[in-house]
Amino acid sequence: VNDLPTPYLSVDLDVLDRNIARMAALADDHSIALRPHAKTHKCLEIARRQLDAGAVGLTVATVSEAEIFAAAGCTDLFIAYPLWVDAARGARLRKLAEVATVRLGVDSGDGADSVARHAGTAVEVMVEVDSGHHRSGVAPRSVPEVAAAAERAGLTVRGIFTFPGHGYDPARRAEAAAEESGALRKAAQSLGFAGIVSGGSTPTAALTDAAAVNEIRPGVYVFNDAQQVELGAYEAADVALTAVATVVSRSDGRMILDAGSKVLGADRQPWATGFGRLPAMPDARVTALSEHHATVVLPPGIPAPSVGSRVTVMPNHVCTAVNLADELVVTQAGSIVDTWRVAARGANS
Amino acid sequence: VNDLPTPYLSVDLDVLDRNIARMAALADDHSIALRPHAKTHKCLEIARRQLDAGAVGLTVATVSEAEIFAAAGCTDLFIAYPLWVDAARGARLRKLAEVATVRLGVDSGDGADSVARHAGTAVEVMVEVDSGHHRSGVAPRSVPEVAAAAERAGLTVRGIFTFPGHGYDPARRAEAAAEESGALRKAAQSLGFAGIVSGGSTPTAALTDAAAVNEIRPGVYVFNDAQQVELGAYEAADVALTAVATVVSRSDGRMILDAGSKVLGADRQPWATGFGRLPAMPDARVTALSEHHATVVLPPGIPAPSVGSRVTVMPNHVCTAVNLADELVVTQAGSIVDTWRVAARGANS
Repeated sequence: VNDLPTPYLSVDLDVLDRNIARMAALADDHSIALRPHAKTHKCLEIARRQLDAGAVGLTVATVSEAEIFAAAGCTDLFIAYPLWVDAARGARLRKLAEVATVRLGVDSGDGADSVARHAGTAVEVMVEVDSGHHRSGVAPRSVPEVAAAAERAGLTVRGIFTFPGHGYDPARRAEAAAEESGALRKAAQSLGFAGIVSGGSTPTAALTDAAAVNEIRPGVYVFNDAQQVELGAYEAADVALTAVATVVSRSDGRMILDAGSKVLGADRQPWATGFGRLPAMPDARVTALSEHHATVVLPPGIPAPSVGSRVTVMPNHVCTAVNLADELVVTQAGSIVDTWRVAARGANS
Repeated sequence: VNDLPTPYLSVDLDVLDRNIARMAALADDHSIALRPHAKTHKCLEIARRQLDAGAVGLTVATVSEAEIFAAAGCTDLFIAYPLWVDAARGARLRKLAEVATVRLGVDSGDGADSVARHAGTAVEVMVEVDSGHHRSGVAPRSVPEVAAAAERAGLTVRGIFTFPGHGYDPARRAEAAAEESGALRKAAQSLGFAGIVSGGSTPTAALTDAAAVNEIRPGVYVFNDAQQVELGAYEAADVALTAVATVVSRSDGRMILDAGSKVLGADRQPWATGFGRLPAMPDARVTALSEHHATVVLPPGIPAPSVGSRVTVMPNHVCTAVNLADELVVTQAGSIVDTWRVAARGANS
């Protein structure tokens, strides 16, 4: 391990497998389907582990992610995004639908028309519900209108979905989970319809009213990250992915690491204590990130490790950290056991 | 252009060339060397344009960036970073030094020892000065001590350098440029030494006291970005790189674009008005980024473009946006004229 050039991303295989098993058990206990979001890991090896553990299929964010996971044998893909489909994207979706069941999000009549015009009935759609995150999706009362427009365009509406992203806030996690259940229930009732009702994010998954959904789509849970720890959703011991960095500079009360925003990602929620956390130094704070520098302020009385020492950092948001790496180094009990390619890195369209 | 799947990064070649020529002229007017930081663009084609316009060599952040630009024929490379050098990195540096002049940063005796032990005299060093950014580097008064340690280790100290990163603040830009000049002058005097004195960032380059330096290392200026515009360093018309995105969802006063943090990067300075700017809508604000969504709040009275429309976004920080892309689409007068590979994408070690 110590011969690998830093910075790099390291995955603890035992923690990863425990995370996968735990979320599978949670879904199983509530008899709901688990369709993990693969944008978090973008790795074929991890997708296979999730499917082997009982996931019904994968969630992805883009057509190119869907193409990569379909080529690896995943036959059930939900692109949880209100795609705009032009001729080229339509041709790709039709090709994809030859090897997998493909569903897409829609949240407007215009969007549904673009799907129908260019992808036709090769794909099915799911109406996106805004449960309070106020990103894409429509209010529950507008779901029947979007569903009707999609059906008029000739599409099959298979269900509804939401992402309770406003649950990424320690003060609103429980509230967001409640709003998620409420919005999905209202939308399903107004549709009068028994299809797929899909919710669930990593911080809300354990709080979601399992009676209101029949599918969840958490992503981050495979690795977890500093955000999940600071949200109170998981413990540091549940974090399977860390950046391994070298101390390159130090002064009183401070050290500089060689893992910056081009390794950790620059995501920082307003409530976060910094730009990541150090598992070995819970009271240290990553106060600033440059592209190749992390500035770490040490708690009083803790001397900075010597220059050349290696330390590990939990990224704030693991999805964006993984997307910066070409590969993940897989370890078990401190030894390297594998290297996984981030197969869908940069697959944004 | 309209057939390319969004989101993608687009470079306006005429603006790029004007930016390159303008910075070359600024350095020339002051008879100082220009050594552009290639971490911004990571493209061989742009490095060649900078060298053809008179740059004395390139600045890079990592050994792997240096390797990529050396393989493309650049023979003068400064790794502006206090590298920790182990046996493997030392071997790479010695190999690199067979084809190029290679200089590295140092800011500690331990760091200098690691360079001497593993890279030996194949490389030269530059002492990093902290001019107020408080990242790596030492105070001007400590520069002689680090230089002496490097010389005791057998290294040749060729100069001093600083990065006035605290100039990335509209309220401190001029002050940071003044502190940069002051710190470099003080360090050079205390060394009693006529070597390379290297400073300069994009927002401070035009404000730096040219009599205090003999080299500048701006990077962002080739493209510029929303940060430079909001800093007042450049105009929107000077921004050569934009993300092209599609409107995928809209509601009253708001639209959602398909370029999120995995395209634009999540960098946001505390004083920034949002997560990027729209050149065509100066009063619109990118209020939130998810991985594949940008939430844009429109000014009152401006209707959201229809779903499926394409809009362009200036990233906040172009260096991190470029590092997310595999290639840049090069346009001239609205037509595609080339595609450049981001050759050093992800070259973090």
